[in-house]
Amino acid sequence: MGAPSTLRFVGLDIGGSFLKGACVNPAGKVEARLHEKIEKDSLEALLQQLERAVRSLAGPSGARAVGLGIPGIVEQGTALVHGAPNVPVLNGCVFGADFAKRIGMPTFAENDANAAALAEAWLGAGRGSERQIFVSLGTGIGAGIILDGRIWSGTSGYAGEIGHIQVEPDGLLCGCGSHGCLETVAGIPGWVRRAELALANRESTLRGQPLEPKTIVDAAQAGDAAALEVVAGSARALGIGIGATLNLLNLDRVVLGGGVAAAGDFLLTRVAEEVRKRTFPQVFTDCAFKLAELSGDAGVVGAARVAIIGLSR
Amino acid sequence: MGAPSTLRFVGLDIGGSFLKGACVNPAGKVEARLHEKIEKDSLEALLQQLERAVRSLAGPSGARAVGLGIPGIVEQGTALVHGAPNVPVLNGCVFGADFAKRIGMPTFAENDANAAALAEAWLGAGRGSERQIFVSLGTGIGAGIILDGRIWSGTSGYAGEIGHIQVEPDGLLCGCGSHGCLETVAGIPGWVRRAELALANRESTLRGQPLEPKTIVDAAQAGDAAALEVVAGSARALGIGIGATLNLLNLDRVVLGGGVAAAGDFLLTRVAEEVRKRTFPQVFTDCAFKLAELSGDAGVVGAARVAIIGLSR
Repeated sequence: MGAPSTLRFVGLDIGGSFLKGACVNPAGKVEARLHEKIEKDSLEALLQQLERAVRSLAGPSGARAVGLGIPGIVEQGTALVHGAPNVPVLNGCVFGADFAKRIGMPTFAENDANAAALAEAWLGAGRGSERQIFVSLGTGIGAGIILDGRIWSGTSGYAGEIGHIQVEPDGLLCGCGSHGCLETVAGIPGWVRRAELALANRESTLRGQPLEPKTIVDAAQAGDAAALEVVAGSARALGIGIGATLNLLNLDRVVLGGGVAAAGDFLLTRVAEEVRKRTFPQVFTDCAFKLAELSGDAGVVGAARVAIIGLSR
Repeated sequence: MGAPSTLRFVGLDIGGSFLKGACVNPAGKVEARLHEKIEKDSLEALLQQLERAVRSLAGPSGARAVGLGIPGIVEQGTALVHGAPNVPVLNGCVFGADFAKRIGMPTFAENDANAAALAEAWLGAGRGSERQIFVSLGTGIGAGIILDGRIWSGTSGYAGEIGHIQVEPDGLLCGCGSHGCLETVAGIPGWVRRAELALANRESTLRGQPLEPKTIVDAAQAGDAAALEVVAGSARALGIGIGATLNLLNLDRVVLGGGVAAAGDFLLTRVAEEVRKRTFPQVFTDCAFKLAELSGDAGVVGAARVAIIGLSR
């Protein structure tokens, strides 16, 4: 217990394509990393991979606890996983005492967006805020909500589904069965679809380029009208969803993360302006808008943070 | 301290037109009431009225503490009031030590929708839930959000502004400066405006009747097509706003209160169905939808509850 080795924590970020991992010290410094293809053909194959990853990251000196970032819903209390479309073998899995026994140390599981939120709140753009939302912008749009310094999970772990706020009442069908969800507009496929539409009838520097948020934002920044229209549409949809969040919760920090956030300040500024239009002046003034700072490390550092928090309860 | 009299609490609900008050016992039973025109020409006139009301309600045996329901924003910590358009003399007022000294007992102030939420959570439709939203449907639409059994006030007291979630991106200008806020559609003026539109080109049993939510819902319930359309529009807007709330917070209770909620189960059922369309099955299943039960008493009982909670901290 007293040896330095026991003060290290393993964080594993289980993704649809990759398993990422890190071993961090109590200050969050990454001392070892791992990045491999996910083995998700069966639950047993995945559990074996997780077990090997923990041993490899902890090394001979071991670790104190393990945190898991799960691409799905994690019920607090039971650690039952469901709603994990990209790693279906996780559905129905419980990361409780059995798994902890198998790897020989305490294990704590949390939704991956919540884990990333905890990482940013700990060491990144969320530092110093006790009530914030971390919005993960990628193919889907998820969020981790932190209230009084703790993740708000809700009744059964579903809290933070900002991507399914309806922002276009007559909008496109979403994978969730609703229409016009924030995700249908401002998720990556939404950017691509709207860019194709914007390009249909006019000249644009985007023509012939890969249509992805970063290139679209770069073209917009250079003044391309079609690209500006696409960015404006994303910012507006995010402004409605984040505006709804601030009207309800009067938070003091919004952190934009995930791949799309790499589009940078040009997007962030426009999102903040769209939020401003939809909130009371005081609510807007109360809130700082920031880009995530930990980028690729947020998932694994956040998972390790989940272990630290879990152990401290 | 030990005498029964000291276990009574005074609740005052300050409204745009009326001051309502009650003295309740620790179980919430109303032992005295007061209902008078509000005196809001000057802050001093209002404070004198509040002082008289407390003395009258507490009676010779006194009371333990006073709670105030404020029609505006109350900053937690400072008890500074602002954003009170219907009783402007309250803006800038602090219900702190000075006021407590003036009336001779501890005083605690809270936003009126939050107070009503606390009343319903204590003795009404919110009983047994630790995470809920009470939505007050009237001219405006406000809410009180209870998380882990406590009001969530946010950074500066603005939390719960569900009425300003944008539900019609190209909708009408709202008093707040935004467009298409939930309140513009499903606040009472929104019902009236949409009813006038719905009546413009067709026969309806509503013609010649006072256009207010209750008569519109009654006509809809009797099968009137124009009225059904108006109810559907309100339900849809509320479904977007409450759906956003549940997607973000995964609550287990929604309580509809305020004057419009008198329209009853016919409206409640349709609101729940519109929420269902916009949330994950589990999120919808987790949540019970109820009509407020305390009606006219929610404000004063809630204010008294604010006093009880304030004293217990």
